[in-house]
Amino acid sequence: MPDSVADLGTAGTAHLTGHRLTRQDVVDLIRRRRPGWSLESPFYNDEDLYRLDVEAIFGRHWFFVGSEPEIPEPGDYVTVEVGRWSVIVLRDDDGGVRAFHNVCRHRGSRLLSDKGGTVGNLVCPYHHWTYDTTGRLLFAESTGEGFDPSCFSLKQVHLRSISGLLFICLAPDPPEDIAEMAATVEPYLAPHALRDTKVAHQIDITEQGNWKLVMENNRECYHCGGHPELGASLFPTIGYRPEDIGPSRRAAYERFLKIDAEMTEIWEREGLPYRQVDRLIDRPTGFLVERTPLDKAGESMTRDAKAACKRLLGDFAQPRLGRQGLHMQPNNWNHLLGDHVVTFSVLPLTPTTSRLRTTWLVHKDAVEGVDYDVENLVSVWRATNAQDAAFVAEAQIGAASPAYEPGPYSPTESWVENFVTWYLQRLSAHLGA
Amino acid sequence: MPDSVADLGTAGTAHLTGHRLTRQDVVDLIRRRRPGWSLESPFYNDEDLYRLDVEAIFGRHWFFVGSEPEIPEPGDYVTVEVGRWSVIVLRDDDGGVRAFHNVCRHRGSRLLSDKGGTVGNLVCPYHHWTYDTTGRLLFAESTGEGFDPSCFSLKQVHLRSISGLLFICLAPDPPEDIAEMAATVEPYLAPHALRDTKVAHQIDITEQGNWKLVMENNRECYHCGGHPELGASLFPTIGYRPEDIGPSRRAAYERFLKIDAEMTEIWEREGLPYRQVDRLIDRPTGFLVERTPLDKAGESMTRDAKAACKRLLGDFAQPRLGRQGLHMQPNNWNHLLGDHVVTFSVLPLTPTTSRLRTTWLVHKDAVEGVDYDVENLVSVWRATNAQDAAFVAEAQIGAASPAYEPGPYSPTESWVENFVTWYLQRLSAHLGA
Amino acid sequence: MPDSVADLGTAGTAHLTGHRLTRQDVVDLIRRRRPGWSLESPFYNDEDLYRLDVEAIFGRHWFFVGSEPEIPEPGDYVTVEVGRWSVIVLRDDDGGVRAFHNVCRHRGSRLLSDKGGTVGNLVCPYHHWTYDTTGRLLFAESTGEGFDPSCFSLKQVHLRSISGLLFICLAPDPPEDIAEMAATVEPYLAPHALRDTKVAHQIDITEQGNWKLVMENNRECYHCGGHPELGASLFPTIGYRPEDIGPSRRAAYERFLKIDAEMTEIWEREGLPYRQVDRLIDRPTGFLVERTPLDKAGESMTRDAKAACKRLLGDFAQPRLGRQGLHMQPNNWNHLLGDHVVTFSVLPLTPTTSRLRTTWLVHKDAVEGVDYDVENLVSVWRATNAQDAAFVAEAQIGAASPAYEPGPYSPTESWVENFVTWYLQRLSAHLGA
Repeated sequence: MPDSVADLGTAGTAHLTGHRLTRQDVVDLIRRRRPGWSLESPFYNDEDLYRLDVEAIFGRHWFFVGSEPEIPEPGDYVTVEVGRWSVIVLRDDDGGVRAFHNVCRHRGSRLLSDKGGTVGNLVCPYHHWTYDTTGRLLFAESTGEGFDPSCFSLKQVHLRSISGLLFICLAPDPPEDIAEMAATVEPYLAPHALRDTKVAHQIDITEQGNWKLVMENNRECYHCGGHPELGASLFPTIGYRPEDIGPSRRAAYERFLKIDAEMTEIWEREGLPYRQVDRLIDRPTGFLVERTPLDKAGESMTRDAKAACKRLLGDFAQPRLGRQGLHMQPNNWNHLLGDHVVTFSVLPLTPTTSRLRTTWLVHKDAVEGVDYDVENLVSVWRATNAQDAAFVAEAQIGAASPAYEPGPYSPTESWVENFVTWYLQRLSAHLGA
Repeated sequence: MPDSVADLGTAGTAHLTGHRLTRQDVVDLIRRRRPGWSLESPFYNDEDLYRLDVEAIFGRHWFFVGSEPEIPEPGDYVTVEVGRWSVIVLRDDDGGVRAFHNVCRHRGSRLLSDKGGTVGNLVCPYHHWTYDTTGRLLFAESTGEGFDPSCFSLKQVHLRSISGLLFICLAPDPPEDIAEMAATVEPYLAPHALRDTKVAHQIDITEQGNWKLVMENNRECYHCGGHPELGASLFPTIGYRPEDIGPSRRAAYERFLKIDAEMTEIWEREGLPYRQVDRLIDRPTGFLVERTPLDKAGESMTRDAKAACKRLLGDFAQPRLGRQGLHMQPNNWNHLLGDHVVTFSVLPLTPTTSRLRTTWLVHKDAVEGVDYDVENLVSVWRATNAQDAAFVAEAQIGAASPAYEPGPYSPTESWVENFVTWYLQRLSAHLGA
Repeated sequence: MPDSVADLGTAGTAHLTGHRLTRQDVVDLIRRRRPGWSLESPFYNDEDLYRLDVEAIFGRHWFFVGSEPEIPEPGDYVTVEVGRWSVIVLRDDDGGVRAFHNVCRHRGSRLLSDKGGTVGNLVCPYHHWTYDTTGRLLFAESTGEGFDPSCFSLKQVHLRSISGLLFICLAPDPPEDIAEMAATVEPYLAPHALRDTKVAHQIDITEQGNWKLVMENNRECYHCGGHPELGASLFPTIGYRPEDIGPSRRAAYERFLKIDAEMTEIWEREGLPYRQVDRLIDRPTGFLVERTPLDKAGESMTRDAKAACKRLLGDFAQPRLGRQGLHMQPNNWNHLLGDHVVTFSVLPLTPTTSRLRTTWLVHKDAVEGVDYDVENLVSVWRATNAQDAAFVAEAQIGAASPAYEPGPYSPTESWVENFVTWYLQRLSAHLGA
């Protein structure tokens, strides 16, 4: 370690005195982490650790970028900005889904700057180099002798569609266990026929917190007392062991036991898989899939727990099917309901800010104003996201204090522990530690 | 020193080429400082030096955070943000004054986000961990087996009230010379009965300059030609030796000599201590206390130098008592008058920005609109602060230039020299140099 | 190289993992640059390389800061902010042109904060130290014994006026080849009598790109398809070799050949030098001077290619004189026309932002509203600058991607290659490589 001003500080104030973390510093931070306790401050504040996260987690793993209904027709695209990467996800002329780096092979100009849209070919705005929807360079003027267009195709990015959910990997050698995830979760997702849906609404918000705080917030319901709207449908005991049910959740848990029994009969009758499969840790592509009951009307995640869309998904005959959940590491969770689907993606923007995108999908034949009302469809998660954003912002500020030290997770925060464990496993693997 | 791009620059351009300062670099900067001359550019611009200031000065010394009248009742609190620290200063249920780190012991969320307010208990907004006003953890749900609440009290911060002025120290071992400061200054402050006052007004402004430039600006009247409103009451020769009085201040100085003689008789008669005690350097807790005359009506620091509040402080029978001053290192100065008190605190925000908080206190029984008019009370210092902010902003920009080199202080800037000397002494002590 | 997190990344992602570049890293980047291909990402994004640019290019070379018509009278000044330097360029009381560092010798306050204006003496706003227009300290109050004002003159900056175009050099030992540039270009510029002009309009815009991307954008017309307004006068084949003319420019090129022959006769008759002199590389002060024809009316760079000002420059009898161009490294280009002059300066603000200043000059006796209309005068370049700013912003974002790799310049981008070659030559010289 160089003789730097930082050396004067203790490890705990490394971020305060501006010491640049070395590989060994990060390895030490990982090694001394106490299982069941929150991470040390640098994981949420340090600039080097942030860049390492972007490179090691988002640069090497599969992560969620959207769903096929966002790009239904040939030429439809969405752009994804993560770290300094910009990626185009588009539907090619043959109806396939592809991803490219959003960088012209001439002088590097970004090709597409909008959040999404439709193109014929991909034409660079700067000097009009033109690529087809497979990334092949079709046209470039005045390129001089010996120029071989075939050497200047757009750079492809690995992409995988799982029942219509789109995941990309920026690494040349993506983790292969995505195949096992696909095989495992598709039977759970298939009945919701996600490829036959359309985007009803989409909201992006910028959260004032490190991306991991946004994920940790999603992975526990210990804070669900702060979500009155969500409480109408989601049981606040999700992730709880019976022995950890506190007085404030006792009544809800009793209802849960009763309704869970009813719903299990329904799922069995409808042939819907429901048993929880937990693969959140010990693998590059972590996920958890399960079907759970919902409270009250039990149909959907709305203010009255009733379906928000008359036109149900797939071949569903009735809406009371509970919630088909898929939680994925590092950046995604999804709620598939009888009448609609909500997908969530978290992307890092800076060490202390993140983008949360929420997308609501309904059956492609559903008619707005007739079958569904957007306000009713989105109001619960729009409110819940705002509440979570406030929690995350305060957690970010507090965890930045030199006085902050890791605290013990509640047993009810076991999925947070799983997220943190997965994250440290992946960082260790990347560092070869 | 590593073989870095910075090596190409001279020491003077180290901040330009982005070299990270080492401990030795800072020691060298301190050693080569020429007494009586301004500091080199990195002290006002370098990010490492800024972080070192926060750690070595604000992290290890007593500094001013407010006064008891800002938190009169049990549960009343103010929050203090300095560097990455967030601190709660509150009145406990027994009427005592305490300070805690504003960080939940669970996952580090900030407990209180407002500038100030009133609470019963301290309830974390995230998972509702609940602490009493002594910082003890009263309640936390679903914490599992073997959880011992007594291990998770809020972390205390050292706090000291001197005649109602509140000072905290973030270090585990605060400088003990605060006791000598208290014993020395309390006889001067006591007659103004600060604990019997209330907040009449408070203004926070963000200055576009390093915190030391804001302090240096406060420590000289060589620039007082730029303060027409303040000039109605404050003699512009404060800090001047007779031989340094220039033509522009000659007349004011003659008036000062005459009025000082009159006031000395009054202070003697009223039994008010007035002799200057200068302990600005050679100690961790530097201060200067003195009572000085005011110009014209001589009563208060207003546009006509007359009292702004009919209800006088303490047991004062008449308002013409001059100015009871207390200047404190590193971040505070105060003017105690016959009718009101003005306190000032400077806190670093970034290397090139600082927060100045100005608070006006009047007798707790004074009635707004009857005994005092807020506009008349605050107008001089609101205008003076704005003028100083402009001076500081230009000093910041100029001192950032690679062409800037330290210049000689005027003999009239001896308190600036004292501030800079104290600062370098404290930095040296911290660096063990 | 230290054992840093950055070591985990490849050179291409050095900026991603926050590694601080060493001198050797920069030397390696320069050495491995492939001639005819664009620069690697760190040159456009890395903070150390940015600071090195400011120090090595703007700190050691002559660069353009404005023209004499911007400061016609004694006491007139403009300020120039580059990197952390602030410079005053002013007309002294004897009518000469001088440059000083905008830093008071007392405590470093900036003396002048406006973009430009008029002063009698230079009076520091802080403590009123007063300098005359030659930089001599005239007055400072209360400076104490042994203070020698002659030791505290403002620091001079080297300045050179070439036919009224002003260039400064911040280094103590400016490159001497400015003399050769002056001798070479003055015969081309003189007929336009720039010292007899006045400022008709000036616009500053902030571009969202590294200063080199702004310059590279100026050095090629391969993108001129994106400039419909400019296309009315400027042939889009500028910088093209006949064999590189593509179908989209064929017709324009045919017109160019015909008009170039006509104009050459006119230039010969009028005794106007026109042959291109290319000294863009292999020297500290790179430049290219030439006179070229304009399309259509051929008179000026307006929407109809007709003169925008009735009062012509110098002794010109008729306006159809084409475009007298001067392109200068590192930061300037100029178009001198029969009726007006447009000057451009690029100054770095941050690694990813730059300031472009465009100034329109007309004969000093021309009367607005009678001889010229400002809207008509400025509309082409105002629109063209906005189009270029959009190109630069996309190039900046794309070149920041870890997926970006240098691409091949078109043969039509030979001046871009010259700019990049000059830049790397100067960086190498600075690094002693």
